[in-house]
Amino acid sequence: MNLLKMSFKPIADIGEFGLIERISSIVSSSLESSPKLIEGIGDDCAVYELSSGTFQVVTTDLLIEDIHFDLLTTPVQHLGSKALSVSVSDICAMNARPCYALTSIALPPKTPVEFVETLYRGMNETALLYNMALAGGDTSSSKNSISISVMVAGEVEKNHITYRKGAEPGDLVCVTGSLGGSAAGLKVLMREKNLMLEHIRNGEQYDRDLMNNLGEYDKAISQHLLPPARVDIVAFFEKHMIVPTSMIDISDGLASDIAHICKMSGVGAKIDESRIPILPQARLIADEFQDEALNFALSGGEDYQLLFTIKPDKFDTIASHPDISVIGKINPENEGLLLKDIYGMNIDLLSIGGYSHFRE
Amino acid sequence: MNLLKMSFKPIADIGEFGLIERISSIVSSSLESSPKLIEGIGDDCAVYELSSGTFQVVTTDLLIEDIHFDLLTTPVQHLGSKALSVSVSDICAMNARPCYALTSIALPPKTPVEFVETLYRGMNETALLYNMALAGGDTSSSKNSISISVMVAGEVEKNHITYRKGAEPGDLVCVTGSLGGSAAGLKVLMREKNLMLEHIRNGEQYDRDLMNNLGEYDKAISQHLLPPARVDIVAFFEKHMIVPTSMIDISDGLASDIAHICKMSGVGAKIDESRIPILPQARLIADEFQDEALNFALSGGEDYQLLFTIKPDKFDTIASHPDISVIGKINPENEGLLLKDIYGMNIDLLSIGGYSHFRE
Repeated sequence: MNLLKMSFKPIADIGEFGLIERISSIVSSSLESSPKLIEGIGDDCAVYELSSGTFQVVTTDLLIEDIHFDLLTTPVQHLGSKALSVSVSDICAMNARPCYALTSIALPPKTPVEFVETLYRGMNETALLYNMALAGGDTSSSKNSISISVMVAGEVEKNHITYRKGAEPGDLVCVTGSLGGSAAGLKVLMREKNLMLEHIRNGEQYDRDLMNNLGEYDKAISQHLLPPARVDIVAFFEKHMIVPTSMIDISDGLASDIAHICKMSGVGAKIDESRIPILPQARLIADEFQDEALNFALSGGEDYQLLFTIKPDKFDTIASHPDISVIGKINPENEGLLLKDIYGMNIDLLSIGGYSHFRE
Repeated sequence: MNLLKMSFKPIADIGEFGLIERISSIVSSSLESSPKLIEGIGDDCAVYELSSGTFQVVTTDLLIEDIHFDLLTTPVQHLGSKALSVSVSDICAMNARPCYALTSIALPPKTPVEFVETLYRGMNETALLYNMALAGGDTSSSKNSISISVMVAGEVEKNHITYRKGAEPGDLVCVTGSLGGSAAGLKVLMREKNLMLEHIRNGEQYDRDLMNNLGEYDKAISQHLLPPARVDIVAFFEKHMIVPTSMIDISDGLASDIAHICKMSGVGAKIDESRIPILPQARLIADEFQDEALNFALSGGEDYQLLFTIKPDKFDTIASHPDISVIGKINPENEGLLLKDIYGMNIDLLSIGGYSHFRE
């Protein structure tokens, strides 16, 4: 191919999801030739048949400095932890247990050795927490910025695997934990970063440990810097013999992620605003920034809680869990994807977007 | 951790292998907690026990623009193909069959859609060639340069797996294909690139298709741009019931890669220069550049041929294969790692390095 003769339609024109669609169609022939590959592109993980009763689920994430993380607002050890948790969260979204991870990093040669050691210490502690192994990977140099690639493999019994597709009218829509904390925490961190840069520009001292002492915002900041993957929820499902009808982890925001479930399942849904569990600190922070905490929950993303649907007869078991909220109901597709607000008005959720790469 | 208070020993001071050692020691506790993870860092792949008789081998590579690839000398479709082949080569080096791949890319929003499509077309064609599936991955934006992360999983029967360790005194050292072609091809491509840049600086026309028409250098250039992973050799071993005692793929150069086998196996070796299969075109190119083709083979790297050791009683079977050369013998560790040159002199191979990241 001659690069110079190509027609230059930039990726920004078709966006992340347009790009994924084109890639899917190109790789479909290699997928068809591999009968053991159960699912390729399109869910939280790829699914591969290991043996008659077991599926392997695998996911990979590529984190780029100043796109996915900012070293001015992220302690390095937390970065290592989050890099792993984000991929483990994808494993949980398939109702699977994480088994091992491979990580690759590319670093400028001037990077301090201690940076890498601290990063891997964060990853290792987090791997121990999830009872999984860090199985190595690749290190190489880069010119300017740091790239971290994480791949996690997990396992799940064939009849327990949970896809984004599978939700049916009448199912209950549930979410774990509370939402909006990550976006709220990021707001505070960005304000702190700008303050720090201003101090530096003015030649003033700035004690960077302040960043870790933002006590009144601790829960929101921690939700942003150290989101826990909900392996505990997968264990709860197993203990109570619940298999959700569909599941996804909230990475782009509730509005965008419930839309993924609805699109893949061919259904609609109605979400009840008053039932969305919003982190109390997120409300305080929203007030400070003259924003709405609901926006953080709907389109802030990066909360890494699980969003799933269950049959209504599982309601009692689910309701017994203190950290799961029932927030709505699955409807037929033609009824649309709606948010019933606190005044009883129905708002089209599809009009509220989540994060998408490449848009400028 | 407070970045500003860290002592700044740059990675360049300890090099790629020093860095890997430090990472290994940090992640060892998560490895110990996972009994099914058979091998972590230190071989071509990590090894995970799937079931009683089968191991999964997994490898990951992270390719960074202008470090690992140069879009001025690499057609995009070839880049996709090579990105996959390099990881499949690691799978082959464990004596395993590739099963599926996950790829992630990070791209500046201005990247043409056609670039991504052509890249994935190259990957998909190559996946079909190796009879494996491209199972998706992750796409995201980057600021300036393109990063490509590839993860490949393969399978091998437990008693066929081949590590870098396992070579014993008396074993024969063998190599597939011919060496030095990749480094020689790169020399030609770099000269062509400089010529092109000169034309552009002078405001002259330059027909970029010339790059694909360097007919007399075709084999060397193709060895650099489209190195084939030797899945055929793994199939040959299986057909003839040969399990090498150790194996590695030649990514850093023969000198460095035989040293890895010797270090991991606790042995020495003597390589016979006259038996090293050097690509004839590499000799012609070396003459043009007033270099030696032997250098290309020993420390050029990126040939992605297999370097392995076998018991001497397998000699007849191995010798029957037209594309395998016996190039030396494994010795006790105290006899060192030597190259017997064409004049019969013994040269210390450890003094000849391969490619290592981070050194400036």
